Amino acid sequence: MTRFKLTLEYDGGPFVGWQRQDNGPSVQQAVEEAIEKFSGESVLVYGSGRTDAGVHALGQIAHFDLDKQTDANRVREALNFHLKPNPIAVLAAEETAADFHARFDATERHYLYRLTTRRAPPALERGRVWHVAQKLDVEKMDDAAQVLIGKHDFTTFRAAQCQAKSPVKTLSKISVSHVGDEIHLNVSAPSFLHHQVRSITGSLKMVGENKWSKADLKTALEACDRAACGIVAPPEGLYLAKVVYA
Amino acid sequence: MTRFKLTLEYDGGPFVGWQRQDNGPSVQQAVEEAIEKFSGESVLVYGSGRTDAGVHALGQIAHFDLDKQTDANRVREALNFHLKPNPIAVLAAEETAADFHARFDATERHYLYRLTTRRAPPALERGRVWHVAQKLDVEKMDDAAQVLIGKHDFTTFRAAQCQAKSPVKTLSKISVSHVGDEIHLNVSAPSFLHHQVRSITGSLKMVGENKWSKADLKTALEACDRAACGIVAPPEGLYLAKVVYA
Repeated sequence: MTRFKLTLEYDGGPFVGWQRQDNGPSVQQAVEEAIEKFSGESVLVYGSGRTDAGVHALGQIAHFDLDKQTDANRVREALNFHLKPNPIAVLAAEETAADFHARFDATERHYLYRLTTRRAPPALERGRVWHVAQKLDVEKMDDAAQVLIGKHDFTTFRAAQCQAKSPVKTLSKISVSHVGDEIHLNVSAPSFLHHQVRSITGSLKMVGENKWSKADLKTALEACDRAACGIVAPPEGLYLAKVVYA
Repeated sequence: MTRFKLTLEYDGGPFVGWQRQDNGPSVQQAVEEAIEKFSGESVLVYGSGRTDAGVHALGQIAHFDLDKQTDANRVREALNFHLKPNPIAVLAAEETAADFHARFDATERHYLYRLTTRRAPPALERGRVWHVAQKLDVEKMDDAAQVLIGKHDFTTFRAAQCQAKSPVKTLSKISVSHVGDEIHLNVSAPSFLHHQVRSITGSLKMVGENKWSKADLKTALEACDRAACGIVAPPEGLYLAKVVYA
């Protein structure tokens, strides 16, 4: 038996999310079905974490075990062939240690959130970016975001249905910057709460609109109260960018 | 009566092309229908040129006349509202001279062609880039491309169904370069023949694969024979990037 590690890119638009659910197609199911078509083996694929419906990945990591004798190149090529109807691509496949775990061994996760502030709706980037349609003060957003760095109770920025045992998380890095015509929010942490990045993005948008000050963001964080959160940004601008293993 | 000039972005994927045709939805038709919903007027919209089925635009220019008293901001907002089901966005609208013509007044057209050479198929950029899946020698492509600069009979790089009176065109500028993980071909000319950019791109791909030398490309150009053309690149990587008016 060989354990394989996959690096996956996907467009989250057509999926109910990473995880298998009864209410529609998931990325996990599509990958598991492609593996079965290639190998004849019915396996479970473990992701580094769930992504919500409509959320994209530039570098989701997953692992699975195969009895079949094969190599990583053939796994990548065969899965890309069988995944073809789906907007999912295996960027890399590699043999990994038998005890490697995509979720439990991850030491850092990087997310990207893309916003566009132009008046016209996105035509080419539709479903890939949050269309805000008004100017935002990016420098103010970046400065305010720094109050979130470090270890905090992030209850304010956590979905009601979040299943994490503790609301305490440690944000390693956060930045908001202009990239071409867009605004990109980059945020890193060992792990995140459910809707944490989208909740942070929505609150930072209020800072960018001058509706909230940096102090207001700090007050919201310290309230440890979901009701103190600004709006929650929509899923289409969010990308699981990279997962790091020690 | 006021003449308006529009700058349009669109995803060419769902369309039979810019021009109205019997066999499916066109960009021109979608824009004309949005204008009629907004103004009640049935108008003709003139583009700077046709784009083929599946070809995108970052900055297509079009004009039309309206009897209704309105202003350019309202035109842009209203058209974006009525265009909504379609991946077409009006980036800018402006009042223009009564004798402005989007096609006949254009002095330069810029096209972009995007290729990706990674093994894995594009998931997020599917339909937006040509997936070549093998390494190409970009420096060689850029160098060879320069033989096309200037005034030539481009019969070799012209579709059989091209309706232009003469096959003689003047290429102002062409470059092939790495942009992130992609290869971008940028090409400018006062005007182009049908399939000219896609034919040039396909032939330059053969140079990048080391199947053709720079001299082979020159021989193909000088043959003035469609049969001498390499392959024709697919529409999904092509973008009408910008149209210039004197």
